[in-house]
Amino acid sequence: MTERMLPAGLAARLARYLQVLMQARKDGRATISSQALGEHSAINSTQVRRDLSGLGRFGKRGVGYDVEDLTGHIPEILGIRGQNNIALLGAGNLGTAIAGSGIFDGTWFQIAAIFDADPARIGQRIGELEVQRLSDVARIVTERNIIAGALAVPATAAQGAADVLIDAGVVILINYSEALVQVPPGVMVQPVSPAGGLFYNLYLLGSAFSLRSSNSQ
Amino acid sequence: MTERMLPAGLAARLARYLQVLMQARKDGRATISSQALGEHSAINSTQVRRDLSGLGRFGKRGVGYDVEDLTGHIPEILGIRGQNNIALLGAGNLGTAIAGSGIFDGTWFQIAAIFDADPARIGQRIGELEVQRLSDVARIVTERNIIAGALAVPATAAQGAADVLIDAGVVILINYSEALVQVPPGVMVQPVSPAGGLFYNLYLLGSAFSLRSSNSQ
Repeated sequence: MTERMLPAGLAARLARYLQVLMQARKDGRATISSQALGEHSAINSTQVRRDLSGLGRFGKRGVGYDVEDLTGHIPEILGIRGQNNIALLGAGNLGTAIAGSGIFDGTWFQIAAIFDADPARIGQRIGELEVQRLSDVARIVTERNIIAGALAVPATAAQGAADVLIDAGVVILINYSEALVQVPPGVMVQPVSPAGGLFYNLYLLGSAFSLRSSNSQ
Repeated sequence: MTERMLPAGLAARLARYLQVLMQARKDGRATISSQALGEHSAINSTQVRRDLSGLGRFGKRGVGYDVEDLTGHIPEILGIRGQNNIALLGAGNLGTAIAGSGIFDGTWFQIAAIFDADPARIGQRIGELEVQRLSDVARIVTERNIIAGALAVPATAAQGAADVLIDAGVVILINYSEALVQVPPGVMVQPVSPAGGLFYNLYLLGSAFSLRSSNSQ
């Protein structure tokens, strides 16, 4: 199976399993059940078993899948490799939290530069990086081979920040703002927001409540 | 069509359309195309058109869907209503950013209390709320009718924070940490993390690169 022959749905699900597996490995877990893998990736466990058996990975009944094995195998299948650099735009509370969270530790991503529009923040250090001027984005994105940008800015500033990054050559945007950022073809946006999921949770809560109400009649 | 009769997949997609539509409304957009709605919710536009025509909502060719109409209609279908209170655990950079972001403005959620384990932060004000002691979670969750908790704590503290909230009666957790939080049946977890999506983006990048490479041979 080569990288570009995966059905899109399968590739997206494998990416989500991988996120869970990497965290399970950080937590020191040797095995994980299809049910746990499904719950943490919001994919049903039947689909998990079908996907993984399609890769020739068969969990052991009552034991589950080998975390180390899958954590090594899925990146190969997805063709994920190397070290991919991120520019973080926004050095306020959110940017500082992202830079300090270790969220990208052990992934194929790392924050390689931090920028802010506020002159008062230029030169401040966040971890090992110094906050830089927005006017230096183009130069630094090229110099440091940055392919992704994280938007840790207010919604009203998000499109402008996105445009600056895209002009500089960034092809993946991680959008921590609520804004609906417009991008040209070839640029991918990864929204990071709980709202859609929460609306679904409210629906589920309401359904459970309706069912309880109708059962008790 | 009643609330509890929606197929799970459809309900989840409607929740994601709703998130996009609400942001489009904030941005002052009167209409939105199935393509834009699909791009911002990561659902393909054919599926968007099928879902919305199933609700009797037909976009006008070349104009799109009426944002105001759908923003009113989808919550009715999902049975979303009322004001749902969130307890935010963690008043560090991330918690402060979440509390100040206005991310829940105009949704059916609001942050109704903020807690921290650090004595130095107790009594500090973030917006209109005062940071409270963890030992007060149970009392305040009951008093303020809080149903959801947001985990803005380090991964190592996430399970403990989740347990405190669940014991207090919270049924939805918004997990901003990377931790794989374990919850009992009936409690829903909404992870907020870009990693799985980013792995998929890397796969897509790699595939595009492979295709370009093989095309140029």
